[in-house]
Amino acid sequence: MSKTQPARGMRDFLPADIRKRNYVINIIREVYESYGFEPLETPAIENLETLTGKYGEEGNQLMFKILKRGEKLDLARGENLADLALRYDLTVPLARVVANYKNELPRFFKRYQIQPVWRADRPARGRFREFYQCDVDAIGSHSMVVEAELISAVCEILTRLGFDDFTIRINHREVLRSLLNKTGIPESQHSDALVAIDKLDKIGRESVSYEFIQRGISSEAGDKLFDLFEQISQIVSDKIKDRFNINGEILLALTTFLDYQKGEWNVLENEIIKILEFSTNNHLLVDPTLARGLSYYTGAIFEIQVPDLAGSLGGGGRYDGLIGMFGKEQIPACGFSLGLERIVVVMEERGMFDKLIADGKLKDDSADVLITLWNEESVGESLKLAGELRQKGLRALVYPEADKLGKQFKYASQLNIPFVCVLGDEELAANKVTLKNMTTGTQEKFLRTEVAGEIK
Amino acid sequence: MSKTQPARGMRDFLPADIRKRNYVINIIREVYESYGFEPLETPAIENLETLTGKYGEEGNQLMFKILKRGEKLDLARGENLADLALRYDLTVPLARVVANYKNELPRFFKRYQIQPVWRADRPARGRFREFYQCDVDAIGSHSMVVEAELISAVCEILTRLGFDDFTIRINHREVLRSLLNKTGIPESQHSDALVAIDKLDKIGRESVSYEFIQRGISSEAGDKLFDLFEQISQIVSDKIKDRFNINGEILLALTTFLDYQKGEWNVLENEIIKILEFSTNNHLLVDPTLARGLSYYTGAIFEIQVPDLAGSLGGGGRYDGLIGMFGKEQIPACGFSLGLERIVVVMEERGMFDKLIADGKLKDDSADVLITLWNEESVGESLKLAGELRQKGLRALVYPEADKLGKQFKYASQLNIPFVCVLGDEELAANKVTLKNMTTGTQEKFLRTEVAGEIK
Repeated sequence: MSKTQPARGMRDFLPADIRKRNYVINIIREVYESYGFEPLETPAIENLETLTGKYGEEGNQLMFKILKRGEKLDLARGENLADLALRYDLTVPLARVVANYKNELPRFFKRYQIQPVWRADRPARGRFREFYQCDVDAIGSHSMVVEAELISAVCEILTRLGFDDFTIRINHREVLRSLLNKTGIPESQHSDALVAIDKLDKIGRESVSYEFIQRGISSEAGDKLFDLFEQISQIVSDKIKDRFNINGEILLALTTFLDYQKGEWNVLENEIIKILEFSTNNHLLVDPTLARGLSYYTGAIFEIQVPDLAGSLGGGGRYDGLIGMFGKEQIPACGFSLGLERIVVVMEERGMFDKLIADGKLKDDSADVLITLWNEESVGESLKLAGELRQKGLRALVYPEADKLGKQFKYASQLNIPFVCVLGDEELAANKVTLKNMTTGTQEKFLRTEVAGEIK
Repeated sequence: MSKTQPARGMRDFLPADIRKRNYVINIIREVYESYGFEPLETPAIENLETLTGKYGEEGNQLMFKILKRGEKLDLARGENLADLALRYDLTVPLARVVANYKNELPRFFKRYQIQPVWRADRPARGRFREFYQCDVDAIGSHSMVVEAELISAVCEILTRLGFDDFTIRINHREVLRSLLNKTGIPESQHSDALVAIDKLDKIGRESVSYEFIQRGISSEAGDKLFDLFEQISQIVSDKIKDRFNINGEILLALTTFLDYQKGEWNVLENEIIKILEFSTNNHLLVDPTLARGLSYYTGAIFEIQVPDLAGSLGGGGRYDGLIGMFGKEQIPACGFSLGLERIVVVMEERGMFDKLIADGKLKDDSADVLITLWNEESVGESLKLAGELRQKGLRALVYPEADKLGKQFKYASQLNIPFVCVLGDEELAANKVTLKNMTTGTQEKFLRTEVAGEIK
């Protein structure tokens, strides 16, 4: 007897789960499409070399690799046992696609992609080894209109799902790198430092400092960086704790404090302030400590938080260098990724799905009507009635076995089916159907041609 | 520079592909739901032991296995390098789910599942290493109502997709095993024999005979089996070449010829004839040579053919023993699987999608309207107009950069966008929008509040 549980960190989704997930996915898809993003899908399996070296150190460790097959494995002799790997995110495959189909794709390619990715991470609350990313990316433009539209789409999705207390933190990789330079951390250690800073939220300052030392970054540099973060925070704390205020006051304070050189000033003025100005919503918060774990970001970075979840609901940023790793051309790109599982977990815990079901916005029944089976001889008639009701747009389920009527009613209640059509000898003789309303318990006979109308 | 092609046998789906695939998937989902089937999803990755020994020999060879990670791999020393594998079909995961959640699931569990599976097969026309199965299964009943409903649902799907020339071949594993017994092939070699017979369509009689010998089945037994097949075919050829005729005449001829014992008679009388009687459609064809490759089938088996595809569009059957391999209980089950890729390939080659697009039933545009960007100062207004149009249910795309108007129009044509809203200085001053109809080329000015109505 084999084990029946799913593999570690993986989950099965029963019908009620899928209905909730699809409700969320449909809203995400609808909003993305309303912004002119088009659907794309890529294979779950990529060549190992496509993924290697794109995500930084953590990515290489957490990737699921696929064993070579047949002769190729025999020849491998312990070296390079894998030639393929499972998709680790949707961004690197997108970059590959853009490089590969450059001539078929429009100059500005706006795509969304809702597919699972796999990471051999330690499973935890809201963290699974298979999870869905709902990505949206705009390729081909340096314009900050892109960031603004992405933020706007994501805000609209969360608002339509019923969230009103989310914050989109925003920072910029060049600003971060500037800070790192000021503390004396050499360029070659920037990626290491960013991976560690990314964990600040979860593990706190001390653990990040410890990780710095482990990664060979001097404790002086670490201390200096945290001092910088703290000083900035003090200067802007009042205003940062409120939502960002469109005139860029905080950024001015911030940039003045940091005494940016011309180039750095430009980044802030031309990019972050523009994004804030274009995005007329009150969910944005500038956070100078936001780092993001992946190594491919080059510009603005984002992360979405809600108060009752330690991790983020999603995040993203600009990655102008990634597509160039696949093609001859550097093509600018920026995107956002929503984590389906995180959104569903929070909605579940807040009772948001229960409310949707109560309001009739989310179905929790298996069918509109159950058709009973009286005896072996009436199978044909029960199947025929089902066909008639389906033709009229109803979801009709036929009880598969001739059984006691009580059992068939019980089955209908168990599946939340609101109506049962009883088709017995008497009904068949009169060309009628007894319709039982499972909510009120009332039963009434109708002509077969009328019954669909009654159910509706 | 990394390679940009997808891995061998894998494919990227650009927006136009996804729209076609989703059109097919939506019809499949709608019909399955109209029969009371509920959605289920299982993880892509399963424990290796869950999949091992369930599919027969071919399955073990073609499975994508996942390399152990970290320490576990170091300890493996060349033995058992893999602990996980990619989903090979949707049936074995379903059996695992039914055994695992038995107490949460209804007595009769009707589920559909539309997800990719992976097989390291040699890629060919319509055969890929990642492909979507659209499965529908009914668990918990021995009743032939199940087979009849499954066949009916699949027929409805194919008919709604626009197919009228498909055939559902039907046979029964017990009948096949009976034939094998008659030819003297021992029980222990039945699975081997079935794998070989399954290829009859593709490779022909001689190659199957050769494979029999390679698998240690005597050439006499093979010859005898083919003689049996031929004799049956001769007896029933006239009638089998027509579609099956509901009174069971052919089966009577067949069973008389085979001189079945009581038990075998019952199988045919109680199962196949019932299925044919319950299924009032003219697509069924009884084919005594139909074998199906997978080892888990125990009863009726099906396969769907169209004249212009060598392989099948889908298939299925009854597998009453599979769930018992995971749980303490034997639970009867029967299902059907449609191959999305095969369906899409045939629809593409027959021009069925072009017709759907021409009839307005399938979209091929990226958005309903493009909003131009005049200059940096008008970004806010263009974004605002987009928001207004989206609120009215339109898909509105904002051109991301201030650029020549001609270029922006060209971009709209390239993406098949039927309308462009021009928002220049003049329009902004008058609180109007110039609307260009890209099909007719006409331009007209409208109030901003009117423009959504005009587009619709």
